[in-house]
Amino acid sequence: MTYCVALALDAGIVCMSDTRTNAGVDNISTFRKMHTWEEPGERALVLMTAGNLATTQAVVSLLEERMKAPEDRDPSILRAPSMFQVARIVGDTLKEVIVDQAGQDGGPGADAFGATLIVAGQIGGGPMRMFLVYPEGNFIEASDDTPFFQIGETKYGRPILVRALEAGMSFENAVKLLMVSFDSTIKANLSVDAPLDVQILPRDALALGKSWRIEANDPYFRQLSESWGAALKQAFYSLPDFDLDAIPD
Amino acid sequence: MTYCVALALDAGIVCMSDTRTNAGVDNISTFRKMHTWEEPGERALVLMTAGNLATTQAVVSLLEERMKAPEDRDPSILRAPSMFQVARIVGDTLKEVIVDQAGQDGGPGADAFGATLIVAGQIGGGPMRMFLVYPEGNFIEASDDTPFFQIGETKYGRPILVRALEAGMSFENAVKLLMVSFDSTIKANLSVDAPLDVQILPRDALALGKSWRIEANDPYFRQLSESWGAALKQAFYSLPDFDLDAIPD
Repeated sequence: MTYCVALALDAGIVCMSDTRTNAGVDNISTFRKMHTWEEPGERALVLMTAGNLATTQAVVSLLEERMKAPEDRDPSILRAPSMFQVARIVGDTLKEVIVDQAGQDGGPGADAFGATLIVAGQIGGGPMRMFLVYPEGNFIEASDDTPFFQIGETKYGRPILVRALEAGMSFENAVKLLMVSFDSTIKANLSVDAPLDVQILPRDALALGKSWRIEANDPYFRQLSESWGAALKQAFYSLPDFDLDAIPD
Repeated sequence: MTYCVALALDAGIVCMSDTRTNAGVDNISTFRKMHTWEEPGERALVLMTAGNLATTQAVVSLLEERMKAPEDRDPSILRAPSMFQVARIVGDTLKEVIVDQAGQDGGPGADAFGATLIVAGQIGGGPMRMFLVYPEGNFIEASDDTPFFQIGETKYGRPILVRALEAGMSFENAVKLLMVSFDSTIKANLSVDAPLDVQILPRDALALGKSWRIEANDPYFRQLSESWGAALKQAFYSLPDFDLDAIPD
């Protein structure tokens, strides 16, 4: 499995992805699931992937091949005039790869080749946008009502996002929130694990912001994990007491 | 879907279950998923169910029919000499119902008829025990290492259980913890909803303890839900700050 999240903030977009892939619990590996491209001053793009690794690697390879020879291999996400067109190219490429594996009519194994992607970025003259791309090649866009996307093993880390995410957050707090969401997931599920990749996309910068990798033994991440356990317990014990005596026998 | 949890504490066992069943989002109903039996001074049993409603209702009906005429319809969970034998009867009955629907060799629809159960209780002379029964009829027992079982939509509510559950908790705090775990799940997933059923099984009482239903508009549950949102945010902001400036450009 996998866990990737993108948060849309007033200040920009913050993406985090884990790096664990597995085919059964006895066959685990580390692969990067976050891919970025930029033409500074013109566009900055982030792609995160969940699902069949052969499918997602093929999608990234196809997108990159088409970038390198855009004259004869259009369309390229580095030439597309808008984020909407970028999402269409990514969706079409994903669908193409899955159909190539599973056949046009899907067939019984189609789900096995499936993948889900998050595409985020900004192109000069246009707004910052963020899309969730389905295996069928279609996609939805994040809005103020739902300012985040998750793919992969999404459930464990969702409650804290639902409760604590605010559009006005600083990048620092957004990274902290993502680390807590990832920590809850890693604690509960073997198929998600560090190292974690982080990418910041500042709004209107039209360039990639800071990016780095958080290793499992990262001192801040470990401290956060421990503090979060203690803070959660404290939060729990700060709740109003339940009165069992008020319940009749 | 469904969400049911049983916590094993030093003081006894606390069970909570939701009541929402659905066949698609346009066909939702309220059904009790918690079933209890007792012979005061001799035994107290709780069964919680998740999965195909026709299967779980058939299991409960069969268990009850066999109780009513134990002379000619052994085995009965009211006669079984130990909790292990109770779990075996429940497992065999579950398997019998699923095989009856799906055929001996399973077949493609077998998963659709599946169900998972939690059986908890105590029988005079024996220890308090708690089992998770699989659709195949086999089962596992809770231990000090894993002192809780969840069935149904288990992921959203798991992180808080992993972090905050302690065997030495009072029943009051255990109920509060379960309410928080259910609240996180209900907030994130339409297929789980109040009213919630609660049953306490005090250790060595050999009788059912307090039981009650928490309605969606229960003042304490609503207060807890609101306080938990605020407490989580406060916990989050109490965490050590992340220093983005320390990350190189």
